[in-house]
Amino acid sequence: MENLYDILEKSPIFNGLGINDIQLLLNEINYQIKKFTKDELIAMRDDQCNALLIVVEGSVKGEMLDLSGKVIKIEDIEAPRPLASAFIFGKQNRFPVDIIANGDAKILKIAKPDVLIMFQKSEQVLKNYLNAISNRTQFLTRKLFFLSFKTIREKIAFYLSELYKQQQNDKLILPLTQREMSELFGVARPSLARGFAELQDLGMIDVDRKTITIRNKRDLLGLVNQ
Amino acid sequence: MENLYDILEKSPIFNGLGINDIQLLLNEINYQIKKFTKDELIAMRDDQCNALLIVVEGSVKGEMLDLSGKVIKIEDIEAPRPLASAFIFGKQNRFPVDIIANGDAKILKIAKPDVLIMFQKSEQVLKNYLNAISNRTQFLTRKLFFLSFKTIREKIAFYLSELYKQQQNDKLILPLTQREMSELFGVARPSLARGFAELQDLGMIDVDRKTITIRNKRDLLGLVNQ
Repeated sequence: MENLYDILEKSPIFNGLGINDIQLLLNEINYQIKKFTKDELIAMRDDQCNALLIVVEGSVKGEMLDLSGKVIKIEDIEAPRPLASAFIFGKQNRFPVDIIANGDAKILKIAKPDVLIMFQKSEQVLKNYLNAISNRTQFLTRKLFFLSFKTIREKIAFYLSELYKQQQNDKLILPLTQREMSELFGVARPSLARGFAELQDLGMIDVDRKTITIRNKRDLLGLVNQ
Repeated sequence: MENLYDILEKSPIFNGLGINDIQLLLNEINYQIKKFTKDELIAMRDDQCNALLIVVEGSVKGEMLDLSGKVIKIEDIEAPRPLASAFIFGKQNRFPVDIIANGDAKILKIAKPDVLIMFQKSEQVLKNYLNAISNRTQFLTRKLFFLSFKTIREKIAFYLSELYKQQQNDKLILPLTQREMSELFGVARPSLARGFAELQDLGMIDVDRKTITIRNKRDLLGLVNQ
């Protein structure tokens, strides 16, 4: 395993801190490193979530059962990302999904009281944590908004109109990957690609990898303003 | 206007602090009180959100335009609740909706650097704030989950099965109001009431205000496990 501090330096929770700062900070609190092997259960849905967990080696996945009992994978979380950070505080502080190791994995575990000590000792770590939870809330707020559109074309047109407001240019650079966009829109990746292709066939946009050129702004915006 | 500290003592952000603690804390930071009159715009959608805003008198509403340009009211926020607390930190720190005064209103405004000073001076305020954002994320996560059910009956049956796991009793006490449930499920209140009435007509539950008695657990759970 790579040195713990080297790994944590790349974690969003310790963003902006040097290896020495992280070492000093961890020396002031209690923490554990837990090892897991492939398919081992790390936490069960509805288990109390009372510690900050950061994947420091390997990767884990969030899973849940759908109504028919079939397993649905929600997402993979790889080192050095934190797990379920929005579920340590708040009223419903329980894991929203099962957490399972994808292979050999190590998890850094910091109990909630020690997390609070860390926040008092390092404003940077506090800000990083606030950013992490706020990003999650902001993502979910946008995702709920996108769910109110009926078709994929409407979602894409609305998204491009937002980018146009920000970038003020007919040539738009997509800031999200295909995976991130399909997650935000709540649609499968092939359907998303088909949506872009249809708008291109209709002469509204040109697609060239990450660059979208708007060809017919009126018709494109018309899709979301009817 | 009631004394500022008396009002803030009831705000979730200052939960657990006495009037004197709040006064001492506010003496150490900069803040402003801003006055608004009926229908005045407090913040516009997409405006930078770089201060904590707490309604200290009156009430405000969050509004946005739907695709046809019609105004949709998202929610009312009354004194002493905070506004858009999940949008001060994070990448997309912009107001998600327009904020408009419902009548005469006063807002306490604390800039982001002073919010961070407050967090360093009072672990209780920090915890309250972390709880507030986490509650929001948890609510949105559950709401997205409920959106995956097709019918209102399925939503209710799943919700009751969750309550049954927690309360371990055939007589369930509903912890949410009708308004909160309809918001969580993303359905109108009359449809929600109709859903409960239908499950009662089918002999699966008895409804008596806040108490739901499960009459036929197998059929009820069958609605979500098919």
